[in-house]
Amino acid sequence: MYADVCDINNIKIDDDFWSAKRELIRKEVIPYQWDILNDRVPEAEPSFCMHNFKAAAALNKKMKDKGSSYEPPKYTFRGFAVFPDKREEAKDDEFYGYVFQDSDFAKWIEAVGYSLSTDPDPDLEKTADEAIDIVCAAQLPNGYLDTYYIINGMDKSFSDLRDNHELYCMGHLIEGAISYYKATGKDKLLNAAKRYADFVSGVFGPEEDKLHGYPGHEIAEMALFRLYEVTGEERYRELAEYFINERGKKPYYFEKEHPDMDGSKDFYHQAHLPVREQSEAVGHAVRAVYLYSGMADMARICDDKELKSACERLWNSIVDTKLYITGAIGATHIGESFSFPYDLPNDTVYAETCASIGLIFFARRMLMLHADRRYSDIMELALYNSVLSGIALDGKSFFYVNPLEVLPEACRKDERKEHVKPVRQKWFGCACCPPNIARLISSIGLYAYTENEHTLFTHLYMGSTVNKNVGGKEVKVTVKASFPNSGTVYITVENASDTDFTLALRIPGWAEDSYKISGLEGLVHEEKDGYLYIKGFSDNTAIEMDFPMTSHAVFADEKVAEDCMKAAIMRGPVVYCLEENDNGPALRMNRLKLPLEISESHTDEFGFDVVTLNVKSVRESLTGSSSSGSSALYKNLDSIKAEEKTLTFIPYCLWANRGEGEMSVYVRV
Amino acid sequence: MYADVCDINNIKIDDDFWSAKRELIRKEVIPYQWDILNDRVPEAEPSFCMHNFKAAAALNKKMKDKGSSYEPPKYTFRGFAVFPDKREEAKDDEFYGYVFQDSDFAKWIEAVGYSLSTDPDPDLEKTADEAIDIVCAAQLPNGYLDTYYIINGMDKSFSDLRDNHELYCMGHLIEGAISYYKATGKDKLLNAAKRYADFVSGVFGPEEDKLHGYPGHEIAEMALFRLYEVTGEERYRELAEYFINERGKKPYYFEKEHPDMDGSKDFYHQAHLPVREQSEAVGHAVRAVYLYSGMADMARICDDKELKSACERLWNSIVDTKLYITGAIGATHIGESFSFPYDLPNDTVYAETCASIGLIFFARRMLMLHADRRYSDIMELALYNSVLSGIALDGKSFFYVNPLEVLPEACRKDERKEHVKPVRQKWFGCACCPPNIARLISSIGLYAYTENEHTLFTHLYMGSTVNKNVGGKEVKVTVKASFPNSGTVYITVENASDTDFTLALRIPGWAEDSYKISGLEGLVHEEKDGYLYIKGFSDNTAIEMDFPMTSHAVFADEKVAEDCMKAAIMRGPVVYCLEENDNGPALRMNRLKLPLEISESHTDEFGFDVVTLNVKSVRESLTGSSSSGSSALYKNLDSIKAEEKTLTFIPYCLWANRGEGEMSVYVRV
Repeated sequence: MYADVCDINNIKIDDDFWSAKRELIRKEVIPYQWDILNDRVPEAEPSFCMHNFKAAAALNKKMKDKGSSYEPPKYTFRGFAVFPDKREEAKDDEFYGYVFQDSDFAKWIEAVGYSLSTDPDPDLEKTADEAIDIVCAAQLPNGYLDTYYIINGMDKSFSDLRDNHELYCMGHLIEGAISYYKATGKDKLLNAAKRYADFVSGVFGPEEDKLHGYPGHEIAEMALFRLYEVTGEERYRELAEYFINERGKKPYYFEKEHPDMDGSKDFYHQAHLPVREQSEAVGHAVRAVYLYSGMADMARICDDKELKSACERLWNSIVDTKLYITGAIGATHIGESFSFPYDLPNDTVYAETCASIGLIFFARRMLMLHADRRYSDIMELALYNSVLSGIALDGKSFFYVNPLEVLPEACRKDERKEHVKPVRQKWFGCACCPPNIARLISSIGLYAYTENEHTLFTHLYMGSTVNKNVGGKEVKVTVKASFPNSGTVYITVENASDTDFTLALRIPGWAEDSYKISGLEGLVHEEKDGYLYIKGFSDNTAIEMDFPMTSHAVFADEKVAEDCMKAAIMRGPVVYCLEENDNGPALRMNRLKLPLEISESHTDEFGFDVVTLNVKSVRESLTGSSSSGSSALYKNLDSIKAEEKTLTFIPYCLWANRGEGEMSVYVRV
Repeated sequence: MYADVCDINNIKIDDDFWSAKRELIRKEVIPYQWDILNDRVPEAEPSFCMHNFKAAAALNKKMKDKGSSYEPPKYTFRGFAVFPDKREEAKDDEFYGYVFQDSDFAKWIEAVGYSLSTDPDPDLEKTADEAIDIVCAAQLPNGYLDTYYIINGMDKSFSDLRDNHELYCMGHLIEGAISYYKATGKDKLLNAAKRYADFVSGVFGPEEDKLHGYPGHEIAEMALFRLYEVTGEERYRELAEYFINERGKKPYYFEKEHPDMDGSKDFYHQAHLPVREQSEAVGHAVRAVYLYSGMADMARICDDKELKSACERLWNSIVDTKLYITGAIGATHIGESFSFPYDLPNDTVYAETCASIGLIFFARRMLMLHADRRYSDIMELALYNSVLSGIALDGKSFFYVNPLEVLPEACRKDERKEHVKPVRQKWFGCACCPPNIARLISSIGLYAYTENEHTLFTHLYMGSTVNKNVGGKEVKVTVKASFPNSGTVYITVENASDTDFTLALRIPGWAEDSYKISGLEGLVHEEKDGYLYIKGFSDNTAIEMDFPMTSHAVFADEKVAEDCMKAAIMRGPVVYCLEENDNGPALRMNRLKLPLEISESHTDEFGFDVVTLNVKSVRESLTGSSSSGSSALYKNLDSIKAEEKTLTFIPYCLWANRGEGEMSVYVRV
């Protein structure tokens, strides 16, 4: 069996908070998503994903049956997305949906794999095997596997890398295939993915007769590096490197592909500069962090210092100038993109769930390059806030956009905010975020831990057991934790005597001055970059840590115009927010009183134990006389009226689970 | 000579403030605009306006010369605007520019007429006469006069009322022709305009074989009513009434014209409901107030009570829910439109100069229906603030968009704000605002005064003389005033004994509780709806009024989320603003202290005496410790740091006359 860096099979999650989320994915999201892939959810936009694989498989069979007498379809431009007027009118042999629709299957099988790796489910595995049979039947004899071109005409395949997502679909296919292989040991899909990657590696490369392009929507890079690490086969690493090295070279590939392209738009695809020269995170936020993840893989695998520096600069650009307090990124819906530094509007924000997930991918890879709390703090922030905000508590509706301030009326009536929804939506036709949440949560162990030869890094605290082979001995680490409600963590290390085993425990930035640890007697330990490195274990060591979950107000840099003289409330890694449901309308009229007086309460209103915060504040309004009678809008100012009020804050990720209403993360100070 | 309601020839302006503005229009704007119309300004986008008239005239001549053997051009779709790559490559016989380019001439000749009516200028008049010769030579024998269709093919004329602006150009032509006729007595252009209107009235009407449409961009309505009032010819009134009555009836005309039109978009043209059923000001703001102006004309001329009610409702909708403190309207650049009630963002606002000018047109017509300070207060507000903001002090650059808050970096880097410019721009290809300012300022007397049989209404106070015939006697009213610097007004009424002459003096809303008046001894007077009606004059009466120009803070209704706990500073009708130039960057950090302490200063920095305001305030910032080191953006909040500071406010309309920088009307309280 192929090996992987930090094998998910060695990590078992058993945690009140995260096990419930994983169960939600397993019991709600994965089955629902399968129905979606097969167009069996009447109220959701049809996917046509499995339809397309079946259509391609039928065509494939026809070609095989007819052999050389068969005339394959000539390419017909079908637009970025084509849907029939009614789903029952869909023709069996046509492609429908978005050009990247194949990736819906790939994301589903990836989540299925992660889920099966910890929760065996023969029915689900049978369904998955049948799906894999359909997908593999669609693969052309030469290995090509993208139904959009198989159905619409292979003569134009790889002719529109900028927009048509073929390499994106390949990337997802590889990730999905690896996940399923790791969980089940079945390699049918993995072999199909490898054959597709082999085909692609025959198409792209430095040779003169090959294409010198790279993906319009990145992901293939990190997928190919993972395929290399799982299989050990160098050609996948080489292809990934080629894509990364080629990107942004002049003359720009996408402009050659699209002679009418506005040359100033290459930044949208992070193709405006060679990647080693990039310093500012720009363009489509999801694409950006997917690219940076691949770059970080390459920096590690190839020990590429220059690329590592670029990754660090890009990380800093995001985290120090373009990051929302919730871990969200992507300030503008125009191009679903990063805006300029410090431009972080709360109400018109894009803050796509997938972008925060991608930031977590990037963070994990930076941690593998260099374990530094700087990365894991942000990973934790994005996870507990912007990512979890993306899915409803019942697992049945989703946010693409995770705003920090919502006035429902404005979302409905203001075209500039129509991308911001005041309540989560059912599955969309362009379904990137829901399956991305599914694959992240079902593989959460891979983010809680990374490892190198002797060291197990603990980035996130959750109830879990990890087995790690150190010099032939199976060390077992068990963590008991109740994040995010409590910051107390119990860790036992077993069977580690006479090994070089090192446990690197993250000291969260939010607890660096207040945390306590006991049980280190007799152990060697030192702190570096926010990690406590412990070694010299016996066969049974118990450590107890406490990261006090204290509540406090956080404010943004003065350069962030939108947050001027406002603050957000945090408790540990959890960002809190105000909802109209608890605090009445016109949340903007509230002002926090300094020094802050915060008390905690518990509620089971959300179906589990949630810590809410009560904060002393004043509700203000301006008072005055009518100035002229000529406009009811304006009055002469007299004074400020202020009433004492206790505000109730709930964790941000829980907003919009109790119906529609105003929401705000920031409150005036 | 035809008569007009309140004849501009009877009003002479002699006022420090307004005479200078009028002089700027006469000496700078009108000559510059003439160069623009003739494509003689290398650095400005070419207009092709006179080019098109010449091309149409040449074609016209060819038709006449060849008679029935001539084959006129078949219509070719040319798009909404066509420009040659280089202006010297323009072909003599093609149409260039926007579909409404003819109106550039019409607006120019309108300003020329107003200017000549008070400032004779033989050279300018000669230029105008020559221009009129060219324009009239373009008119088809049947009266049709729109160069876009004459050149591109008449077979499609009036086939796209929604987008192609033929009736809009006719409206402007009528307004321009009347202005020039009133000033010079020359009726060549007026006759051409009448012939065009006659042609149009043969095309549109209730008869079955006529078109049952109405203008996509309104203005023809008010222009035709004016043509009716100037000529007394009923058919122009009837055509205007037809356009107003037909609008918004089902099935929608624009949807019949454009079968692919999204039916929810009729509101953009105010064509979603019959006008008498409309209550909310919606859609493109300029179009809206132009329509409402025509509706108010009709309500007055036809004594249409239902229409008057609709006008009042629409006025209230604007003024009570959609008006910026500067008199600006149009909260969103999407469709240059009104947004929903109370949605008044300061930084992404559209606030087109033309929309405020249109609001002034609407106000004047409401005043003619019913003199009420409610209308004139807003007229004054729009004039001294949002309209004057539209033109630089040197008359050479212009704002289309008049924001209330500007961060120059955001205007450059944020696509959502690219319509907001931090400095005024040179003439644009789509040149609506600059000539609209020119025609408004050069006819300012028509807004200062309206009249009915016995009464002269004084809406705006400016140095001026008005002659009014009352029962055969020429009453002379002279006003001396120094608005907006001082609120003292001296009025003399001469030659009014033994007449029914009534002088109705507006008591501005901002001075209703503080104004003083003397000289009323022996006169009959009563106040109604904000006007002081005075009669019983002798042959020489002197009245002195004082409207104290006190400064105060004004705040918006709590429903305006954007202005929460903020206030603007006003002095009399003048809105003030902060500029970075006087107050340093990050204006948002300042907070006004209550109770307000304001003192006045004078500056001649702008080339004339300007009152600036010094307001005690504090510059605040949040202080705290770095929370984690993981993002430089966020810190734990400790306390507020506040420094005493005196802010300098300048009149809003003067902003961006000293280079680029931040600006803000609203300041935190």
